[in-house]
Amino acid sequence: MHIKALFFDVFGTVVDWRGGIAREAERLLAPLGVQRDWLAFADAWRAEYQPAMEEVRAGCIPFSKLDDLHRRNLDRIRPRFGLSDLGEEVCDALNRAWHRLDLWPDGRDGLARLRERFLLAPVSNANIGLMARLSRHNGITWDAILGAEIAGDYKPKPRVYEAACAALDLEPGACMMVAAHSYDLAAAARCGLRTAHVARPQECGPPGGETQPAVPVDVAAADFVDLADKLAALAASR
Amino acid sequence: MHIKALFFDVFGTVVDWRGGIAREAERLLAPLGVQRDWLAFADAWRAEYQPAMEEVRAGCIPFSKLDDLHRRNLDRIRPRFGLSDLGEEVCDALNRAWHRLDLWPDGRDGLARLRERFLLAPVSNANIGLMARLSRHNGITWDAILGAEIAGDYKPKPRVYEAACAALDLEPGACMMVAAHSYDLAAAARCGLRTAHVARPQECGPPGGETQPAVPVDVAAADFVDLADKLAALAASR
Repeated sequence: MHIKALFFDVFGTVVDWRGGIAREAERLLAPLGVQRDWLAFADAWRAEYQPAMEEVRAGCIPFSKLDDLHRRNLDRIRPRFGLSDLGEEVCDALNRAWHRLDLWPDGRDGLARLRERFLLAPVSNANIGLMARLSRHNGITWDAILGAEIAGDYKPKPRVYEAACAALDLEPGACMMVAAHSYDLAAAARCGLRTAHVARPQECGPPGGETQPAVPVDVAAADFVDLADKLAALAASR
Repeated sequence: MHIKALFFDVFGTVVDWRGGIAREAERLLAPLGVQRDWLAFADAWRAEYQPAMEEVRAGCIPFSKLDDLHRRNLDRIRPRFGLSDLGEEVCDALNRAWHRLDLWPDGRDGLARLRERFLLAPVSNANIGLMARLSRHNGITWDAILGAEIAGDYKPKPRVYEAACAALDLEPGACMMVAAHSYDLAAAARCGLRTAHVARPQECGPPGGETQPAVPVDVAAADFVDLADKLAALAASR
């Protein structure tokens, strides 16, 4: 393997969306006297994610930024949580909760170590503005922000992985997709990319995220530090 | 002015293309026994830059990455410098000289200071892969790489400035274009962006780059450190 770039899924793989959304919702709405089960709220919001992107992937609606899909999804779940009366300004602020999710604990050290050896880029379904602000919030340095917005479509459509490789002028075999989700890695592998699975058992609350890949991968790691160790060992053994 | 993002022209404004191309050409070709006036070579290569992009801007050829235009331009000037016999591999390596240009001396400190207060992004005609490698070479941290490739056209076409603002979900008036070239700032201002001129008198060798803007700008600075001072003073005076 002569890997030059690592591409990262972000929601769930780099940052904890569930804990972050629950925390930010409480921070914004508790002062307004609103108390809810915020983890259930986060799960409900996230449950609208794939169906909304599927409308784009299927060509039913034109490409729309994830910020806009999130905002529409928020309106869809608000009645279920008795939040129909929130003002536009509060809803917009709540939508920016996705810009302030926190890294998993191994994120900072792991990404810094990986960046010593590789170009790093998010290949996420997040739009560029969302990703730039999320990265600032966490002090992450990328070499470029790639992903859905530059491709004009959503993962796991092949075009998203292909556009990322093309943007860095690399063959797919010189790029490795890093994700906590097997469906993402399977799609990347079909495009010729290398793949690394990172276990994020805390991602979804019970029953939890994937503890191991459900598809063949090049590397299966416990976290980003373990991934850095394993990629260093592979390079040393060449 | 409530500026949230600074957009940077890169060749000439952030990095010294003339000195860098001359140095890299000598580094690659002198060991092959080739001696030329490398500054004249850099000037000749750069002179093909605007005409090549104009073919794209005018719709004569489809959008092509700057790396590809540079490579074609190299082939155009090679006969003039008695370099027709260079192999493909040497030409490709020479083309990557554009990935290894150096920052002007104020670059590192100036950009670091500006990043404390603003989102920073190159809005250059360079393609994403070129810009990612050039930034790595110089240790520059951007919040995103914007510019020609995400717009599918070349500056000074309005679409490039508009696409940059849209990618960060900002109104043009919240964005400031920073450049050493008045034509770039004039085009950005027509799109509603704020503008800052940075003097780069060394850019082009004699007769030199612009020592002051030839068009009205919001800020005229001697370098990036001076720009950071002036933007801090403006913020303090609000």
